[in-house]
Amino acid sequence: MWQISVYLSSRGNSIRQNQGILQEGFIQYAMDKHHQTDNPDGIVNLGTSENKLCYDLLHKRLTKPDMLHVEPSLLQYADWTGHAFLREEVAKFLSHHCCSPKPLRADNVVVMNGCGSLFSCIAAVICDPKDAILIPTPFYGVITEDVHLYSDVKLFHVPLDCEADGKESRHFHLTVEKLEAGLKKAKREGWNIRALILMNPHNPLAELYTPKEMIAFLEFAKRNELHAIVDEVYMLTVFDESVTFHSVLSIESLPDPQRTHVMWGMSKDFAMAGIRIGTLYTVNTDLVEALAQLGSFHGLPGTLQHQVAQLLRDRDWINNEFLPENRRRLKNAHSLLTRELQSLGIPFLDRPAALYVWADLRKYLSKSSFEEELSLWRCFLKHKVLLSCGQAFSCSTPGWFRIVFADQQPQLQLGQFHKLFLFVCFFKNILILIVLKHLGHCSKSSDQLKERDSPVPDTGLLGAEEFLLLDCQESKPTEGLDSLIGTLRHQIHSSDWLEKNTPVLSHGEDPEILDVFKSLLQRAKK
Amino acid sequence: MWQISVYLSSRGNSIRQNQGILQEGFIQYAMDKHHQTDNPDGIVNLGTSENKLCYDLLHKRLTKPDMLHVEPSLLQYADWTGHAFLREEVAKFLSHHCCSPKPLRADNVVVMNGCGSLFSCIAAVICDPKDAILIPTPFYGVITEDVHLYSDVKLFHVPLDCEADGKESRHFHLTVEKLEAGLKKAKREGWNIRALILMNPHNPLAELYTPKEMIAFLEFAKRNELHAIVDEVYMLTVFDESVTFHSVLSIESLPDPQRTHVMWGMSKDFAMAGIRIGTLYTVNTDLVEALAQLGSFHGLPGTLQHQVAQLLRDRDWINNEFLPENRRRLKNAHSLLTRELQSLGIPFLDRPAALYVWADLRKYLSKSSFEEELSLWRCFLKHKVLLSCGQAFSCSTPGWFRIVFADQQPQLQLGQFHKLFLFVCFFKNILILIVLKHLGHCSKSSDQLKERDSPVPDTGLLGAEEFLLLDCQESKPTEGLDSLIGTLRHQIHSSDWLEKNTPVLSHGEDPEILDVFKSLLQRAKK
Repeated sequence: MWQISVYLSSRGNSIRQNQGILQEGFIQYAMDKHHQTDNPDGIVNLGTSENKLCYDLLHKRLTKPDMLHVEPSLLQYADWTGHAFLREEVAKFLSHHCCSPKPLRADNVVVMNGCGSLFSCIAAVICDPKDAILIPTPFYGVITEDVHLYSDVKLFHVPLDCEADGKESRHFHLTVEKLEAGLKKAKREGWNIRALILMNPHNPLAELYTPKEMIAFLEFAKRNELHAIVDEVYMLTVFDESVTFHSVLSIESLPDPQRTHVMWGMSKDFAMAGIRIGTLYTVNTDLVEALAQLGSFHGLPGTLQHQVAQLLRDRDWINNEFLPENRRRLKNAHSLLTRELQSLGIPFLDRPAALYVWADLRKYLSKSSFEEELSLWRCFLKHKVLLSCGQAFSCSTPGWFRIVFADQQPQLQLGQFHKLFLFVCFFKNILILIVLKHLGHCSKSSDQLKERDSPVPDTGLLGAEEFLLLDCQESKPTEGLDSLIGTLRHQIHSSDWLEKNTPVLSHGEDPEILDVFKSLLQRAKK
Repeated sequence: MWQISVYLSSRGNSIRQNQGILQEGFIQYAMDKHHQTDNPDGIVNLGTSENKLCYDLLHKRLTKPDMLHVEPSLLQYADWTGHAFLREEVAKFLSHHCCSPKPLRADNVVVMNGCGSLFSCIAAVICDPKDAILIPTPFYGVITEDVHLYSDVKLFHVPLDCEADGKESRHFHLTVEKLEAGLKKAKREGWNIRALILMNPHNPLAELYTPKEMIAFLEFAKRNELHAIVDEVYMLTVFDESVTFHSVLSIESLPDPQRTHVMWGMSKDFAMAGIRIGTLYTVNTDLVEALAQLGSFHGLPGTLQHQVAQLLRDRDWINNEFLPENRRRLKNAHSLLTRELQSLGIPFLDRPAALYVWADLRKYLSKSSFEEELSLWRCFLKHKVLLSCGQAFSCSTPGWFRIVFADQQPQLQLGQFHKLFLFVCFFKNILILIVLKHLGHCSKSSDQLKERDSPVPDTGLLGAEEFLLLDCQESKPTEGLDSLIGTLRHQIHSSDWLEKNTPVLSHGEDPEILDVFKSLLQRAKK
């Protein structure tokens, strides 16, 4: 796919080629963003974890006159861990929202341009090259690059099984036993494990961990002299008032405070990923000093630091305007998506936090493999819906997808999503054939395939069942697919979505398939 | 000085301890900044290369209503090489100010949070760990950390001798021959040299290179398949209208365009180091792609990108307000400092660009060593003047200092500087004695020294000559020092600067020396 560049070093070539699935999807999205009027047929992004629900609130606040402040010190070189006035506001803010037993101290705060930068820096200073950090899977996949690209640190995966395995268990259940087993395995394989990454609320599971659970994880870290990097960037997204998030900063007596480092940022909780604010709270002054050395690479504009401090000190706006309204909107959007998933019979983890839902699309894979998962993901993307598939999060079971619900046009987009689902499910079988033909992966000879496949548009069309059968010669028939065909049939006969949506399909790059599809649908309508 | 931290890796410890002289000085300054009313006895910073002359102009422009603009895309994840609208403005701006033969293209622009970030990224992708980059010395010392901390790349020094060595030569003359010799030496020592760093206008020399010279350097790079990283961050600081700066982007036909990468930023030319804008122009798409992968660590807030684009597209303000006035003020400040240096008999490179002057303080070193240079630097700092000494720029000859003139209160500060100079020069000899005593470096026994030295405040004071003689037992008498003593005498007898300035001295931490000094001066006044 990529040619080695003579202009780059080995490391440079490897950095250049290091394009994960999340990034691939985002790049395609960036080139063809959906816009209600300007680009209605563009890609709908349910893949990138962004909160697009509160732009109106943010715009109102961020254009108030207090944001337009310039003074000499803001235009000059400053403390690379952040201006003191900003670190003070962050400390106060976290003291309040994390319910810390004592006021948090500004000296323990490091502010950088995003949590990715913090991950990179922390990896650089607590690990040597080729060291590793323990992380339960699935996890927000970008952390792999965050700790690797510059700092050459590997994430050692602790796979969480998707199935609950006992009375007190749950899906993707994180336990100390699993961490212990993971660490043991890592040591057996010769890895030098320096830290453990924990996320609460979790990305992509949206799981909330109790203080008891978190303390147990932190005790595990302490026993093994591991740093615990606790990522709490979704802490204010909990949208169910009956549920309380517990920050590790609320813990009265941390097991190993010198090795416990808490990350927070404004990308998720304040719906401003483009503003690049990541913060770290740690009482470890050695770490702060080391991070300060790398801070010049991750610095923030002085004037922006002023704006962020203004925002954080505006308690009235945060507590009485932004947060309640944001929660309300998140809750609604979450309901909308989860109702949709329920109506499609798609299982998912129902959690009261974050901007996404972790959904089980396993039944739409004709076989349980990551190739299949990727092909389903590509099929969505080709037809203008960007999701995030489980392998992008190193999930150990294929077929799980992260679906972001925090979009400002939920109805349109979920409609699109619904439509796509039906389309993809119906369509998958044709695609599989075409793909198999091209790759020569089919057990039939390519000639046989050609005979059966390429003449389709000319010689009259196969019905859905026939395609299903064709496909099933290669893989087990799935109950899910059957029921989907049923749903599709029902939709086709009971609504006009086909007529309305056919034009969308013509933007795909596969005119042959489009013809097949159109003919198939015409026949089905008869 | 630093204890090894058990919480950090070897790399982390080394990063934490990596505190250069520039940084040490800046940290002290940051804790005790001079302020005319709030902290009149604080440290005057003539060490950090910042332009503090134009705050009024910047304030006026940066608080105009067009700066306060928010739209959804600015709050969301975006292209890590910079928003397209910003890259377009940068391309237009550079096309104009660099006089490019054809319009420069936005696709070839990468914007990051500062040129330090760009150096770090470029080193990461064109070098492998332990590779090296050729750089003539002296050079802006922070680049050492920029390419090393994350990317583990070394700078291989090509020392430029401070003396002109021929008819067409000049001080610190960069020639292709020196580059060839440097490269040869590096190869002999087994270094894998991947690039050459050039600075124009130079930091700290303020040297301007002609297109002919630059082309010769670029031809050298091409012959040796080296990337040429050309740092032009001071390009708009040329304050003499009769002199023209020539960007390599103005060259009709670059020797090796795929390996020529031009850096520019707003820290120096727009006097806003705190705003963190560094730009790269390169036609090498492989490099741009690789840098984009690291861009997430060096991203800029979307709203700030808007502000910067607004500024760059305001040609009227730039060309008719900011640049002419900035040049005028730079010119005045430069004159003020250079006149002062002339009156003190201090040689310096007289160049019509940049924010600093490269000055030759060799005559104030009692011997030519970097220890002496450092002790002179510390003496300045102790007495509240921060300068940058040559070793911070890897200068091969001790005794050169970079003195920043672009300060908003030049008279006050240069007055302070002048005063300090006399103080330091006069004083240096006592200091040397004290230091020698403490270190036991003196050829005399410490008892003898004690006899001669410590009773000084009690038993009547030695004259300046006597101190000079004492010192000269250890090192050759310097003509410069003699003439300085003369100047000092003259000052003492012809003005009241001593009375006016004595209180400043009492802030030093050496009451014993202060007493000696006061008594000495009293005697000199007789």
